[in-house]
Amino acid sequence: MITEIAQITIDPAQAQAFEHAVAQASDIFRAAAGCRGMRLERMIEDPAKYTLRIQWDSVEDHMVTFRNSEGFQAWRALASPFFVAAPIVEHSREVLHGF
Amino acid sequence: MITEIAQITIDPAQAQAFEHAVAQASDIFRAAAGCRGMRLERMIEDPAKYTLRIQWDSVEDHMVTFRNSEGFQAWRALASPFFVAAPIVEHSREVLHGF
Repeated sequence: MITEIAQITIDPAQAQAFEHAVAQASDIFRAAAGCRGMRLERMIEDPAKYTLRIQWDSVEDHMVTFRNSEGFQAWRALASPFFVAAPIVEHSREVLHGF
Repeated sequence: MITEIAQITIDPAQAQAFEHAVAQASDIFRAAAGCRGMRLERMIEDPAKYTLRIQWDSVEDHMVTFRNSEGFQAWRALASPFFVAAPIVEHSREVLHGF
């Protein structure tokens, strides 16, 4: 399993509406092939910044299968009106689960 | 609970030794006041980059209590020889647990 890490910047005045839109989108990710979990975190030092963490079975499940699906179009329709910059998207793999 | 997110860059040729050092340090964090969990993730697109995620009861537990403790000195003695840049440290709070 890998984690998509998307750094998203919005207008903090829109925070409540953005968080509501992401909550609405959880059904899209729940239905996506290979998607195993989804969390949204807000950065404390800069409340315009969020980190969306989505677990996928593989990078391909995210970058190929999901990005070419209707689910991606629906997700972007919900979320992208809030973006004030292009999201920065990376992927990670857990190498140590300390405790 | 909040999460410390530390972005760490190392020489990827030192990856195995760095991961071993972080594993050794897990006892330091386990013993730290207010510390609730620790994970290390390696970035897939850039294997020189790691994200260390540490759960704390509060930002103060990390930035004040831990940073002024002997545990911090022990942690930095283990890990900082691997750093090729100053770690970027932020904190986040989970605002949505989708699934």
